[in-house]
Amino acid sequence: MFDISPLAQCHRNGVRQTIDNKTKPPGALGQLESLACQLALITGPSKIQLNRPTMLVFAADHGIAEEGISIAPSEVTRQMVMNFLNGGAAINCFCDLHGMEIDVVDAGILKPICDDRLTNQSLGFGTANFVQKPAMDINVADKGIQLGAEVTYKHYHQGCNIFGFGEMGIGNTSSAAALMSVITTIPLRDCVGRGTGIDDVTYEKKIRLLEKSIHHHQAKSTEMMSTLATFGGFEIVQMVGAMLAAAQSHCVLMIDGFIATVAALVASKIEPNALDYMVFCHESEEKGHQKLLAYLNVETLLSLNLRLGEGTGAALALPMLKSAQVFYNHMASFESAGIEVV
Amino acid sequence: MFDISPLAQCHRNGVRQTIDNKTKPPGALGQLESLACQLALITGPSKIQLNRPTMLVFAADHGIAEEGISIAPSEVTRQMVMNFLNGGAAINCFCDLHGMEIDVVDAGILKPICDDRLTNQSLGFGTANFVQKPAMDINVADKGIQLGAEVTYKHYHQGCNIFGFGEMGIGNTSSAAALMSVITTIPLRDCVGRGTGIDDVTYEKKIRLLEKSIHHHQAKSTEMMSTLATFGGFEIVQMVGAMLAAAQSHCVLMIDGFIATVAALVASKIEPNALDYMVFCHESEEKGHQKLLAYLNVETLLSLNLRLGEGTGAALALPMLKSAQVFYNHMASFESAGIEVV
Repeated sequence: MFDISPLAQCHRNGVRQTIDNKTKPPGALGQLESLACQLALITGPSKIQLNRPTMLVFAADHGIAEEGISIAPSEVTRQMVMNFLNGGAAINCFCDLHGMEIDVVDAGILKPICDDRLTNQSLGFGTANFVQKPAMDINVADKGIQLGAEVTYKHYHQGCNIFGFGEMGIGNTSSAAALMSVITTIPLRDCVGRGTGIDDVTYEKKIRLLEKSIHHHQAKSTEMMSTLATFGGFEIVQMVGAMLAAAQSHCVLMIDGFIATVAALVASKIEPNALDYMVFCHESEEKGHQKLLAYLNVETLLSLNLRLGEGTGAALALPMLKSAQVFYNHMASFESAGIEVV
Repeated sequence: MFDISPLAQCHRNGVRQTIDNKTKPPGALGQLESLACQLALITGPSKIQLNRPTMLVFAADHGIAEEGISIAPSEVTRQMVMNFLNGGAAINCFCDLHGMEIDVVDAGILKPICDDRLTNQSLGFGTANFVQKPAMDINVADKGIQLGAEVTYKHYHQGCNIFGFGEMGIGNTSSAAALMSVITTIPLRDCVGRGTGIDDVTYEKKIRLLEKSIHHHQAKSTEMMSTLATFGGFEIVQMVGAMLAAAQSHCVLMIDGFIATVAALVASKIEPNALDYMVFCHESEEKGHQKLLAYLNVETLLSLNLRLGEGTGAALALPMLKSAQVFYNHMASFESAGIEVV
C-alpha cells in the first residue's frame, strides 16, 4: 500500500559537518544536534524546512468502554470533540501558541456531530466491544488506513511537511494496550496503565478483561491487519494510515503519547522505514509507554509527566524542533564568526 | 541588601482550583500544572503574566584559565561575546525564535570591547587566579552584586517580569565547582565536570588544583560573601546580584545550567525566599549539576543533554512557561465547555 524510502544516508556526513562547524563545542547542543541531523535528512539537507505544522486529532469511541474500565463515559469523547472545535481544550491552547494548525477528524464517535469545522470520515458509531468480537472487520480497518492517509495527503498538498497526531477516545488505552502486548509480546500487565486515572479495582478488571480478550481472539503478532482490526480503535487505525502517508511523503512525524506511539508501532511493523521520519516527542506517565519507547529503541525530547493525549506532547515539542531548525539554518560557523575552533 | 518576600500562599488553593477546573483529568498536564501554579503565585493569581522576557548574558574571564584546565583559551570569551553581539551564537538563535530580548553584559573580560550594543559594567580584566590568591576583593564582589542588580532593575522598569541568566567565561566551571563544593560541602569530585569537554588528564589536574585552592583558602560555607569573592567569577557575582534583584521585584527567574545554578545556590543562601521565584529549566550534562539540583530539591523542565551555557537551556524552556501561561489563562473549564467532570 505504501512505499517508504529510508533516509538518504549519503548526506549524513555533510549534515554532521554543518552541525560541528557551528560556534559551540562538538555535541554541546545535545539532543538538539541529533534532532537537527534527522530533520535535515528528512527535509534538507542544506536547510531544515518545517512548513505549516499540522496536528491531526482523530476521535472515536470504543465498544470496550461499556465494560466500565475508563474514568469517564463515552459521551465525554463527543463533548471533548466539541471542545476541540470551539478552541477550548489543552491541544488548542498549545497549537495556537506554537503555530500549529488543527484538523479534528471524526474517525467514528458514537453520536455524529454536524459541524463544518469537523473532518467527517467516520468508520462507524464506535467499535464493537472486543471482549466479545473483533472491534471491526478487516475491510473497515483497510478503509481506515486509506482515510487516514487521505487527510494527510490533503494537508501535504496544501504545503504541510510536519504532522502531529493526536487522539481522543474514551477507552482507547485498553485498545492500545492490547495491540502493544500482542504485537510486541511484552506481557500485558506491563502494557496496561491507569488511563487518565482509574483506581486499583478497575485496573485489575481492565487487565483481566484484556487478557481474556487476547486469549479469546487467539491474536498473533504476525498478522498485523487482523490484529489491528481485532483490537484497534477507529482513531488508531486512521492514525496508522495518516502516519504511513506522511512518511511516504517525506514529512516529519511528531509522535507523542501512548496511543500515538502504539499507532507508530503498527505503522513501523507495516513499513519499517516509517521510523526514520518519526520524532518521539514526549514520554507520558502511562505505564507501558516507557516500555514501548524502549522496544522501539527511541528517546523522547520531553518528559513532563503529561497523561492527557490529544497530541499535547507533540504540540509542546514543536518549539524544540523549531529550535533545532533555527540553529542548523542560522547559527554562525567558527569561520563566519572568526572564532578559534574549540 | 535585599528584601525578598515569600510567595503569598493565601492564593494557592484558588490557583489550584482554577487548574483543576480546566477540561482535563486532574494532574493530566503534569509538570506544567505545578509550573502554572508557581507562575500564577508570582505574577497572578488570576492571570499569568510574562512580559518582555529578557536574557541577561554575563561574560567574564577567569585567572584560573591560565592553568590550562579548559578546552579553550581565554581569548574565546571575547570572541564569543562578539558572536553574541553579532547575533550568531546559539543563544541568539533561541532567543530570537522564542521571543526573548538579550542584554550582553561585560562583567569583566580580559580585553574590553568598545561597542554600543554591549552593557559595560566590568569589574576588572579577568579575576585573579584563585589557586594563588582570592579571585577578587570582597568589596569588588559587593560591587558586582550591586551592578548585577542594576541591570535587572533597568529591564524591570522597562516592563520585563521574567529573566533568563546566561554566561560565558572560559574557566568558569572551575569557579562554579569550587563554590558548589565549599557551600554545599558535597565532595569536590562530585562537583567537577568536564566543562565543555576536557580529557582525563586535564580532568584530574582540574580536581587537584581546585582541592589545593580550597585547602589553601580555608574556605568556609558560612561566610558567603568571602567564599564568593575567593572563588567567584565576575560574571557569577553579577548573576547573583541580578537574581536577587529579580526575585525582590517579584519576577520569574529562569535558571539553567551549572554556572547559573551555582549562582542561584549562592543567591538562595543569601536570601532563601529567592528560590520561590526560580524555575529550573534544564538539567545539563555537566557533572555536579544533577547533584546540585538534588541538593536544592528541584526538578527541571527539560533534559536535552545540553552542555553549552549561554542561557540556552532557559531560552529553550521559555515555550514551556508560555504553555503553562496559555493553558492557565485560556483553556476552557468543565463548566464553560459543558463537559461532565471526569
